[in-house]
Amino acid sequence: MMPAGFDAWSRAALAKVEQALDLWVPADAPGGLGEAMRYGVLDGGKRLRPLLVLAACEAVGGDAVTALRAAVAVELIHAYSLVHDDMPCMDNDVLRRGKPTVHVRHGEALAMLAGDAMQALAFEVLTSGEEVDLSTQARLCGLLARAAGHAGMAGGQAIDLASVGKPLAEETLREMHRRKTGALLKVSVVMGAACGAAGPQAASALEAYGDAVGLAFQVVDDVLDVTQSSAVLGKTAGKDQQQNKPTYVSLLGLEGARAYAHALQRRAHAALAGSGLTETSALSILADMVVRRES
Amino acid sequence: MMPAGFDAWSRAALAKVEQALDLWVPADAPGGLGEAMRYGVLDGGKRLRPLLVLAACEAVGGDAVTALRAAVAVELIHAYSLVHDDMPCMDNDVLRRGKPTVHVRHGEALAMLAGDAMQALAFEVLTSGEEVDLSTQARLCGLLARAAGHAGMAGGQAIDLASVGKPLAEETLREMHRRKTGALLKVSVVMGAACGAAGPQAASALEAYGDAVGLAFQVVDDVLDVTQSSAVLGKTAGKDQQQNKPTYVSLLGLEGARAYAHALQRRAHAALAGSGLTETSALSILADMVVRRES
Repeated sequence: MMPAGFDAWSRAALAKVEQALDLWVPADAPGGLGEAMRYGVLDGGKRLRPLLVLAACEAVGGDAVTALRAAVAVELIHAYSLVHDDMPCMDNDVLRRGKPTVHVRHGEALAMLAGDAMQALAFEVLTSGEEVDLSTQARLCGLLARAAGHAGMAGGQAIDLASVGKPLAEETLREMHRRKTGALLKVSVVMGAACGAAGPQAASALEAYGDAVGLAFQVVDDVLDVTQSSAVLGKTAGKDQQQNKPTYVSLLGLEGARAYAHALQRRAHAALAGSGLTETSALSILADMVVRRES
Repeated sequence: MMPAGFDAWSRAALAKVEQALDLWVPADAPGGLGEAMRYGVLDGGKRLRPLLVLAACEAVGGDAVTALRAAVAVELIHAYSLVHDDMPCMDNDVLRRGKPTVHVRHGEALAMLAGDAMQALAFEVLTSGEEVDLSTQARLCGLLARAAGHAGMAGGQAIDLASVGKPLAEETLREMHRRKTGALLKVSVVMGAACGAAGPQAASALEAYGDAVGLAFQVVDDVLDVTQSSAVLGKTAGKDQQQNKPTYVSLLGLEGARAYAHALQRRAHAALAGSGLTETSALSILADMVVRRES
């Protein structure tokens, strides 16, 4: 797939994801909950995780209906984590995706509830309808629950909280990011692969790819926090330094962090090359996008 | 089962539930997350929902291993909702189960994360191991996700938030409680039934039973908030009136609310009587306990 082919593929994929999110996130949930959920999920975000799910599914020739469910579920978990992360008791951020954050717009109580309901909705989406067989539903629920919970995203956020103002060894920093951001990016690839019947070689190659892309994403995030403006990022820039948070930039320096991101990009490509899969060009380009992105 | 038999049954059931919670909620989750999760879940609570799961499973001759997983998962959802409910942006409560609330002890950020991780853990528990077949895992995940999310508990909490200080019609009040407290109590019974092969008549009787018990629980909660002290309740008493929240007592008066609770108790018994099931005595006594409880 050439970049032109990828553009058409990603446009079509994004349209499907937006439409599915719009269908799944209820407008009529009571007490303003539906509005708060929709405000937190729709019309924003790069949808990187859904694209990884769909691309990995295609790489293994998996079922597209199942993959779209998985893509929606992963994005709901990601979006809920942003809603809760932005709240005053966590990062206290007022700007996200270029708009006021959910608690600024809808109040803290409804923001917390909306996040909670978005997490539940992710598992509702994975277990709805009869198009997806029950054993795949169960496998996808299990993968997502582990990536979202104490051993994954929530655990990484707790390390992050506990580490503010402390120097961290590279190993601890990597462990924090592997859980906080990496786990959900990696599980996007793994869930996509679980929508088909990947052999053990392909499955472990896709896992290695997901691991490298997940870590690269966070390294680049740390770089962008230093080098870009809030206007470009659509969220408050320079927060890591301001909050004295350990980052790859504080650990490796700006050039060191950039070099590390490129090394991870090469590692992602190498995993695909050794995967035995043929249709991996969308995954390949997604890895490039993660490293080259400017916001 | 006579009350004496029930005492032995419930002691054994509670011991199993406490042991399973202790095994499942990790002590070693990083950044203090494990401690906060365990503080919010262990050593407290009446474990009414787990008891309903186990009793309903026994009523249909279901699988005890599956039911224990379901019991732990439901209690994790209940416990996470209390942790988030108690936070300053919601009910701002400092006392729960006779102890300082999680955010008082561990800080708001970790309390929010612990609640988030407890919700994920519920789905992790339901999808772990090979003792439970994958299709049952998927069914249980789906039931729990719907009961916890926008159409259930989270939706009811949003109605509650939106209704503070407003007079509510009985129908709206019932709808709020049916979602906020009732959905999780009812799904406890339904998930217990899903651990076996209940016929349609038994399944719908158990649903009706769960519906009546769920509503009765909330009516009694409203009564106790007025009639009991904080010391007896282990949480702050008199909060509904202080926050000008609509309750069954404000709608029906104290005697009216008590009479309604007894009517629901009779409805629960009637559902069991018409269920065609024989082993329903634990469920029958649990319905009585819900209405007669004094804390």
